[in-house]
Amino acid sequence: MTSDSLLDLEREARIGLPEAILCAGKSADQLARILEQAPPRVLLTRLAPEQYQALPEVARLDYDALSRTAIRGGCPTPPAPARVAVVTAGTSDLPVAAEAERTLAFHGEACERLADLGVAGLWRLLAQRERLARFPVVIAVAGMEGALFSVLGGLVGGLVIAVPTGTGYGVAAGGRTALGAALASCAPGIVAVNVDNGYGAACAALRCLRA
Amino acid sequence: MTSDSLLDLEREARIGLPEAILCAGKSADQLARILEQAPPRVLLTRLAPEQYQALPEVARLDYDALSRTAIRGGCPTPPAPARVAVVTAGTSDLPVAAEAERTLAFHGEACERLADLGVAGLWRLLAQRERLARFPVVIAVAGMEGALFSVLGGLVGGLVIAVPTGTGYGVAAGGRTALGAALASCAPGIVAVNVDNGYGAACAALRCLRA
Amino acid sequence: MTSDSLLDLEREARIGLPEAILCAGKSADQLARILEQAPPRVLLTRLAPEQYQALPEVARLDYDALSRTAIRGGCPTPPAPARVAVVTAGTSDLPVAAEAERTLAFHGEACERLADLGVAGLWRLLAQRERLARFPVVIAVAGMEGALFSVLGGLVGGLVIAVPTGTGYGVAAGGRTALGAALASCAPGIVAVNVDNGYGAACAALRCLRA
Amino acid sequence: MTSDSLLDLEREARIGLPEAILCAGKSADQLARILEQAPPRVLLTRLAPEQYQALPEVARLDYDALSRTAIRGGCPTPPAPARVAVVTAGTSDLPVAAEAERTLAFHGEACERLADLGVAGLWRLLAQRERLARFPVVIAVAGMEGALFSVLGGLVGGLVIAVPTGTGYGVAAGGRTALGAALASCAPGIVAVNVDNGYGAACAALRCLRA
Amino acid sequence: MTSDSLLDLEREARIGLPEAILCAGKSADQLARILEQAPPRVLLTRLAPEQYQALPEVARLDYDALSRTAIRGGCPTPPAPARVAVVTAGTSDLPVAAEAERTLAFHGEACERLADLGVAGLWRLLAQRERLARFPVVIAVAGMEGALFSVLGGLVGGLVIAVPTGTGYGVAAGGRTALGAALASCAPGIVAVNVDNGYGAACAALRCLRA
Amino acid sequence: MTSDSLLDLEREARIGLPEAILCAGKSADQLARILEQAPPRVLLTRLAPEQYQALPEVARLDYDALSRTAIRGGCPTPPAPARVAVVTAGTSDLPVAAEAERTLAFHGEACERLADLGVAGLWRLLAQRERLARFPVVIAVAGMEGALFSVLGGLVGGLVIAVPTGTGYGVAAGGRTALGAALASCAPGIVAVNVDNGYGAACAALRCLRA
Amino acid sequence: MTSDSLLDLEREARIGLPEAILCAGKSADQLARILEQAPPRVLLTRLAPEQYQALPEVARLDYDALSRTAIRGGCPTPPAPARVAVVTAGTSDLPVAAEAERTLAFHGEACERLADLGVAGLWRLLAQRERLARFPVVIAVAGMEGALFSVLGGLVGGLVIAVPTGTGYGVAAGGRTALGAALASCAPGIVAVNVDNGYGAACAALRCLRA
Amino acid sequence: MTSDSLLDLEREARIGLPEAILCAGKSADQLARILEQAPPRVLLTRLAPEQYQALPEVARLDYDALSRTAIRGGCPTPPAPARVAVVTAGTSDLPVAAEAERTLAFHGEACERLADLGVAGLWRLLAQRERLARFPVVIAVAGMEGALFSVLGGLVGGLVIAVPTGTGYGVAAGGRTALGAALASCAPGIVAVNVDNGYGAACAALRCLRA
Repeated sequence: MTSDSLLDLEREARIGLPEAILCAGKSADQLARILEQAPPRVLLTRLAPEQYQALPEVARLDYDALSRTAIRGGCPTPPAPARVAVVTAGTSDLPVAAEAERTLAFHGEACERLADLGVAGLWRLLAQRERLARFPVVIAVAGMEGALFSVLGGLVGGLVIAVPTGTGYGVAAGGRTALGAALASCAPGIVAVNVDNGYGAACAALRCLRA
Repeated sequence: MTSDSLLDLEREARIGLPEAILCAGKSADQLARILEQAPPRVLLTRLAPEQYQALPEVARLDYDALSRTAIRGGCPTPPAPARVAVVTAGTSDLPVAAEAERTLAFHGEACERLADLGVAGLWRLLAQRERLARFPVVIAVAGMEGALFSVLGGLVGGLVIAVPTGTGYGVAAGGRTALGAALASCAPGIVAVNVDNGYGAACAALRCLRA
Repeated sequence: MTSDSLLDLEREARIGLPEAILCAGKSADQLARILEQAPPRVLLTRLAPEQYQALPEVARLDYDALSRTAIRGGCPTPPAPARVAVVTAGTSDLPVAAEAERTLAFHGEACERLADLGVAGLWRLLAQRERLARFPVVIAVAGMEGALFSVLGGLVGGLVIAVPTGTGYGVAAGGRTALGAALASCAPGIVAVNVDNGYGAACAALRCLRA
Repeated sequence: MTSDSLLDLEREARIGLPEAILCAGKSADQLARILEQAPPRVLLTRLAPEQYQALPEVARLDYDALSRTAIRGGCPTPPAPARVAVVTAGTSDLPVAAEAERTLAFHGEACERLADLGVAGLWRLLAQRERLARFPVVIAVAGMEGALFSVLGGLVGGLVIAVPTGTGYGVAAGGRTALGAALASCAPGIVAVNVDNGYGAACAALRCLRA
Repeated sequence: MTSDSLLDLEREARIGLPEAILCAGKSADQLARILEQAPPRVLLTRLAPEQYQALPEVARLDYDALSRTAIRGGCPTPPAPARVAVVTAGTSDLPVAAEAERTLAFHGEACERLADLGVAGLWRLLAQRERLARFPVVIAVAGMEGALFSVLGGLVGGLVIAVPTGTGYGVAAGGRTALGAALASCAPGIVAVNVDNGYGAACAALRCLRA
Repeated sequence: MTSDSLLDLEREARIGLPEAILCAGKSADQLARILEQAPPRVLLTRLAPEQYQALPEVARLDYDALSRTAIRGGCPTPPAPARVAVVTAGTSDLPVAAEAERTLAFHGEACERLADLGVAGLWRLLAQRERLARFPVVIAVAGMEGALFSVLGGLVGGLVIAVPTGTGYGVAAGGRTALGAALASCAPGIVAVNVDNGYGAACAALRCLRA
Repeated sequence: MTSDSLLDLEREARIGLPEAILCAGKSADQLARILEQAPPRVLLTRLAPEQYQALPEVARLDYDALSRTAIRGGCPTPPAPARVAVVTAGTSDLPVAAEAERTLAFHGEACERLADLGVAGLWRLLAQRERLARFPVVIAVAGMEGALFSVLGGLVGGLVIAVPTGTGYGVAAGGRTALGAALASCAPGIVAVNVDNGYGAACAALRCLRA
Repeated sequence: MTSDSLLDLEREARIGLPEAILCAGKSADQLARILEQAPPRVLLTRLAPEQYQALPEVARLDYDALSRTAIRGGCPTPPAPARVAVVTAGTSDLPVAAEAERTLAFHGEACERLADLGVAGLWRLLAQRERLARFPVVIAVAGMEGALFSVLGGLVGGLVIAVPTGTGYGVAAGGRTALGAALASCAPGIVAVNVDNGYGAACAALRCLRA
């Protein structure tokens, strides 16, 4: 029992979500050993391009540089129409949104992206209001002041999962202000995940859709 | 348009959740005026006993001192069996749990309470594991270090909504440590609401169940 | 030169705003001595009811309990129509809004209040959009997540002065989240004053209108 | 509607300020695509030299390395004399001041810079007192302890817009101390924007001047 | 060696400052026992009126309610002229200033108070400039944004000891902003003590004067 | 399974420490019900005098007001000599020290108290150095800057368990500075518990002594 | 007495732990000079590979890149069986665990590593429960939400020394959340050391084992 | 008056300390222009080696890499014996100590360095006690938990100026813990400057010595 790595292989049976590999802070050797142990289908998150290039099985992985995710073993065909909307406030929020989208795809769930709906140009969001109201789950990705979360929460009845991002500077840096905005929202029933946690938001969406 | 209070009466039509009255920080006069405007069925939260006693329509309200909520107009009969579990770590978390339960009842949704499942006595939680796995939504209420959130998240497949509470002292005071634990959890797909926000957790559960 | 109190009597000549008396933390004796020194027309802020009752010249003061302000010497007739809008997100924000309004009145400036425009019920704000667009200055008072600031900033071209309030609990308590939201806003050119500083917002409005 | 970028092209009509492009955190590809969509006259902020060099239309942009801004389409001739003063405490505050100045120029507004007026050598500020009093708007840029904001606010009657900067180390690092100083100022009616937000300060000045 | 209280009776011989009794958080019994052990001449700080009234030897103490200090055994005649100036920004800073003054008096050192020199009315400070320049030590007491510290530090050559206070609200509450301003000051050689620590500032002044 | 309270009765068998009752935040009713469920010998912590008076079984409890603890069922005779030293920096730290002492006594472990050893009068600590070196465990209780922890850690070879307290004001308030001092200590192998957690320190001592 | 470096050579006689060399922030020259002064057997911590390569006596050091430690002079043979368990939550915690292990080895104490026991896959920890219960000391290394500390503390009776790590992002970054979880734990008697302080945890284990 | 740089040339006449050039964050061009304006004798602080190399007048500067200071124009001969002691806790504190020493030298004041007196090896400090007691001013430089400040403050009667440093990791990183320790010290009359501010400590010493 002195192995460095002990995957939770029964997680899928237990909670319906297989263990993903969080690659940040892991060496190439460690990642290679973990991949040997892992099941054929596996999702890797926070995989930097340099880490990806150093893996022995580069060829077998479907890597996406924007989201820094890799998928081994392909994705199931999702049911249509999409049940999850992924809404972003601005361009800088796209990597986190993409992590959520890739996680959903890995688990066989489709989504639609509605980009650049930040509230400074409110008409962009209002124009999508009816479309948004049809989704049982909305993943909202925003940094800066995170006002998008509250506006969305007052417009749609689905589950709104807020993903704060570190977009911005000064008091916005690090995503704490956007996180606080999600948690302190005047709109009822908004839930939040950690800053930049697109993966977690997708997992929460999956838990909800199976409810 | 110089009224001090303008209820969002169409909220229910829009998002399926009528506006509740957050009573903290409001004077007796303000509350009385808001109640006049409000629809016959309404939920009041954070209503202190002194505030409650000062209301003109005390007799028409169903007040619960533990949760500090009042309901005017009764509650619909919920469908059985309950679809939401409300889990608490310790006795001090009960007021927040009760706020969630009362909010669910107001919206016609039943729940079951599983109290005192803090992880220091892990067997208490493990003994309930199969029962917990049957709920599509689990509202988990815990203060101190909030380890309950992660352990639950690794055991059940339903949506786990973490409600951190201010239970504890020193670094636990104010609920920031428990909130951080919910957001930084190693279990995938846990979502959080604001500290002590039992009302918000229930609203999120309702959004999810309608998904 | 051992006096305890030295009013800045030339301030009005210098910057157009006479010194107001911030009463918080001052004893009845100290306030009485300051009032003796002060010019006939003077504004007192953060004056608690008990402090007010203990003043020797209660009869000469126009006291407003909601805003905790008192005015000695009356107010000039303001020019019409009002050039400042005071917008609030919810009932709990009214005391701070009232402090701004009383400060404007003291300086001979009118304002209109638009209450309860929190973004969870966005239609309330949108219904006032044209009206709001006519004001050169909008003072926005909001706590919780402060999303109102950004939505307003994207709708009107006047100067938007954000006054965060401590309305809310958990991560909203103390007003830091709302303050962060004002400062990190995605809408261009929003400015902020300190938490609960209705007086300061009014002074900024006066500086702007004289520009 | 799956575009990654959706400019708020009507913003200028709505609030009098066209959308600027915040370049921080955006890739060369993303910037190139946004520039294609953007109107002929556009302002780019937080554009690092490397980002600028990688743009396809380098030749058409007027780039300023100090402020990290680029302007496409030239600037209108501003009315004279200048209505905005830009005051800095020290040399390290110049990049932020320059961002404000370039933003003003883009919108056809002139300004005058008064540099190095930090309060440790108070005579420098006092010597400019009469000149400063003539400006309807003063943008004050300072880091460290931000005492400049309060001293200015007590000397001039125009709108003082404080831009805290991250100049300094230890407790000054990140600009939080200077920001706190602006918000907690004993001088009435000072307003603040986010740390290093020269762009926002200029937009606020424009909103005020149009008041 | 199970006594609850063990005074550092040799402290005066060692560092020239006898141990004072910090009364905050101590019960009447504890204070009575400590006073029995203490030398005939002793200084008590942070002694609330209720604590003072409950002491067995009320009659032998010289109590000052503003500073919450008591002196047993009288004060030596100080050398003239005073070598310490105690400068305050506003009325709310007087209790802390008084604690410093009483501490100096207990140790046989005189001081002069210059009250209400906050920088919003800069002329008040400038009018005292020559007088202030004659003191080898200046204790500056200020809350809010603490700009007084920097302005003083640029005007006088003596040791400037900044005592931040909790005067103010919002970001000023608790004195952290004023403390940050003292530490991040652009004026060279300003030193700070803890928030509200008038006693410590006086001790530092005594250490300096003996240098 | 809808009970509000579910004691972890097997905890003693599992980890050698029976569950104690943390009384803070619990109502008289809740405490009475928990005491019914609890085993005959039980320790209650953070029991305020008012809570204690309201308990039905006041007569059966050994209550100590300083430590706010109560013991039902008596304490075993501890082995001699004491194996734990409880060191305090000042009088205000005694309540927390007493909580540790009472917890040790409840578990049949003796201790010796060495009070008032704060480092400002270092000779007091140095005079006890040999005595301190004989204890396998030293519980150190200190607030303010917590320098006692490091000095002790450099003098004795036993396990030093630091208990930071909230003694002090300004930056010391709340115990964060003392806690940081314990964790950042330059002396090797110091461990810390939560602010004011005398109970936890005693439990850690018991764990260590059984090692 | 103007030497830059003065080793505490008697520390081992005093407290049983020789001084180790913390290499972070020291230049190659400084390290070389310290090594000259140091005793033949010495432990170096936080020694980056570049620092190690630049040392004159590379050949005489046993360097471990994972833990960033070097040992000069070899290690004593430890007694069997191991008395310390080192438990990690995930792969990213291994460097800190390895620092603890190397420190124990340097001091002649063996340990066993139990890796990847994070609570999201609770069975991994439960499967090791009996084995873990045999160790008098358990060093637990975990980042993110640090739930491992509480679960362990409820399962084993030995001293649990929590080492929070900076593993994770957002609210987990920097290890503050995991540190808070260790300190606020609902399990009794858990102690904590600084974030990433594997060395300190090992020293505490050594202090305990000698108790 | 549009120059970017306006030295405070009269500062020396006013407060006895000429303006020094803080080089951090300034470009080579900016520094060159400032040096042209500056008087013949000038002190430069926080001058990185790369910045130094890029200056046109490298040959005329006396540069010290450890303290990152440069002196143009030489230093006066200081009076003997030294009146300032510079005490450090460990090797990592030397750069900050050296900045203080160089600043003193520039102003014609001598000092003695007493290095490596951290309290974990208390004998090192006690051995210097008599020597330390002879200095009217002691500059103490320490990071980590900053316990050195309090121990020194209880041993010597001179003015103790605490300079916290960022030495350490986890809760020590950034110097906030050491700063808090200086401000919350139980020893009377300790004063603090900003983290790493060796320059400021020296200026405070000069102010004190001229008292």
